[in-house]
Amino acid sequence: MKLTLAEPKYLRDSISIISELVNETKIKVSSDGMELTAMDPANVAMVVFKLLPTAFTEYSVEKPVDLSVNLANLKQILRRANPTDMLTLELADNMLKVQMKSASTRRFDLPLIDIEEKEQKVPELKYPVIIQTASVVLNEAIGDADTVAEAVSFTAEPGLFGLNAEGDLNKAAIEIKADDITRIEAKERTSSKYSIEYLKKMIEGSKLSETVTIQFNKDYPLKLTYAAIDKVMLSFILAPRVEND
Amino acid sequence: MKLTLAEPKYLRDSISIISELVNETKIKVSSDGMELTAMDPANVAMVVFKLLPTAFTEYSVEKPVDLSVNLANLKQILRRANPTDMLTLELADNMLKVQMKSASTRRFDLPLIDIEEKEQKVPELKYPVIIQTASVVLNEAIGDADTVAEAVSFTAEPGLFGLNAEGDLNKAAIEIKADDITRIEAKERTSSKYSIEYLKKMIEGSKLSETVTIQFNKDYPLKLTYAAIDKVMLSFILAPRVEND
Amino acid sequence: MKLTLAEPKYLRDSISIISELVNETKIKVSSDGMELTAMDPANVAMVVFKLLPTAFTEYSVEKPVDLSVNLANLKQILRRANPTDMLTLELADNMLKVQMKSASTRRFDLPLIDIEEKEQKVPELKYPVIIQTASVVLNEAIGDADTVAEAVSFTAEPGLFGLNAEGDLNKAAIEIKADDITRIEAKERTSSKYSIEYLKKMIEGSKLSETVTIQFNKDYPLKLTYAAIDKVMLSFILAPRVEND
Repeated sequence: MKLTLAEPKYLRDSISIISELVNETKIKVSSDGMELTAMDPANVAMVVFKLLPTAFTEYSVEKPVDLSVNLANLKQILRRANPTDMLTLELADNMLKVQMKSASTRRFDLPLIDIEEKEQKVPELKYPVIIQTASVVLNEAIGDADTVAEAVSFTAEPGLFGLNAEGDLNKAAIEIKADDITRIEAKERTSSKYSIEYLKKMIEGSKLSETVTIQFNKDYPLKLTYAAIDKVMLSFILAPRVEND
Repeated sequence: MKLTLAEPKYLRDSISIISELVNETKIKVSSDGMELTAMDPANVAMVVFKLLPTAFTEYSVEKPVDLSVNLANLKQILRRANPTDMLTLELADNMLKVQMKSASTRRFDLPLIDIEEKEQKVPELKYPVIIQTASVVLNEAIGDADTVAEAVSFTAEPGLFGLNAEGDLNKAAIEIKADDITRIEAKERTSSKYSIEYLKKMIEGSKLSETVTIQFNKDYPLKLTYAAIDKVMLSFILAPRVEND
Repeated sequence: MKLTLAEPKYLRDSISIISELVNETKIKVSSDGMELTAMDPANVAMVVFKLLPTAFTEYSVEKPVDLSVNLANLKQILRRANPTDMLTLELADNMLKVQMKSASTRRFDLPLIDIEEKEQKVPELKYPVIIQTASVVLNEAIGDADTVAEAVSFTAEPGLFGLNAEGDLNKAAIEIKADDITRIEAKERTSSKYSIEYLKKMIEGSKLSETVTIQFNKDYPLKLTYAAIDKVMLSFILAPRVEND
């Protein structure tokens, strides 16, 4: 296995974001790309990550390989990569060899670990609501909601996407209308509530893409997707907060 | 009541500065503008704030209204305002409704509170010493004094404004001469001492205005004023530190 | 004694860096310049600092003077100097008088202290290895090593300079080849190990100079030198970490 990235950012930022939700995981490397599917330890959120072969300047994988790693450890090494470094990943002696090449050549060896983990499957989810908007619009709305509460309701109806949060003191209500920036697909009024603590970690995906796709349904998992064509796809699935009435 | 600001900065920054000195207060809204007069809990400092009707793009007040609010709470909401947002304040159901409008519309509801507070009156103060200078000049001098001590003496004489601080270890002495930037009105040598901890909070007023007016007298309250013509006026009155000799 | 600096940076940054290693010391002022030689309290590192008379716009010293100071105290005052201030040092009443002059005149008085310190002598060191490179290259390499371990091995051989660090988990290996930026003088493969904690403080010398000279030998002190011609010279000598095999 030898993989070379001319833009380390896609791998570095993705691993940095994912490491806030997941501690240890298997990264699968095959002719399809570099892929990761993992649950957070509380079983509330799932991450689905894919870095495409077309994102690499060299992508040679003889047979599929599983890289089991500690993500905090990998993140710490990848953050040493400068934007202009050529980043190469190789495998030897049960070690992941990470090389950063510019004027100097810097090599980090990271031990692979054993993970007794059952294969994570991405659930089949169907969504009546699909919203596409600028990442910064969602970031701002989650920031607003975070000012007043710990959970936020997402509501969609034809032409309108709303976020509502209610704390002990204050209330926040954000209204986003369909326009050039925001595309809203919703047949009827649909509402569901999600944890802001998790959302704050997920909207870091805005580092990878200027747009985000938001999918949800009543009392049903939320799906956020950040994608850069031919490069990277980072999705999050977040369990709803269901009120006990 | 409906008030709209095209430059949220004047309200946002003022409330942020005042909230470091005062917890809860009444904001009076009348045809004269939005006004606030409050003491800090230790009764050492007074804040006098006025946002003029000309600072607003819409200013409609049928009858005078008192908005009793928790300032930390209001500050937390106002800091969500971007420089280019249209900021609207309205009153309904004993709630202050704060709306920020750009591509999206974001609304925050803030509960009004009950305040058992006697009306604060701005004391009538007369000053033989008036100094006008660049805000940054005062900021720098207070920063210098803060390096060595907890209190600083202000001294004025014709043509000269001095600040002196003496700590257990070091001494600092700042001399500012009357010139294009600094105008000094003083008939005789006059000196008085003030708390640096309070001054550091007050010089944050430099966010509102590039110039500051400094008024004081021997063992008499200091008055600092930051003003932007037709927009905002923020004054602080600070009790002197009188030595027990 | 009256010394005036038009670029306070050389004194301010040097004292700031040295104060991280040394608490109290004598600064010698003579016709040769301003000099300081001191050990850190743990006797692991030595600092040698020299600010040349040509760095000053006025340099008048009648007879050699020792300024014994607390460096944290001096640093706190010097950090108040703006890049465009004229900085003057004078001596009176057992006080160091530091004056910063721009629009205003700011004066700080700093007490001299008593130091019962035996004269520090710079040891005579001979080096078979001399490397000159960009400060940022060494900074980056130490940053890399710091990610994985507490000590780093320096290795030189003809044409090649390497740094290796090995932690409980990860390994880092940096290879720097002789080129336009890096000049390497080494007759045979030579290796020695040093504390990263100390190195991190020393590479702050990169604030003074874009290049660094690195000298070492097997199980022998390392010497790092940052110099700006006709202005300043800051050297560090660091004891090796010798393995007990």
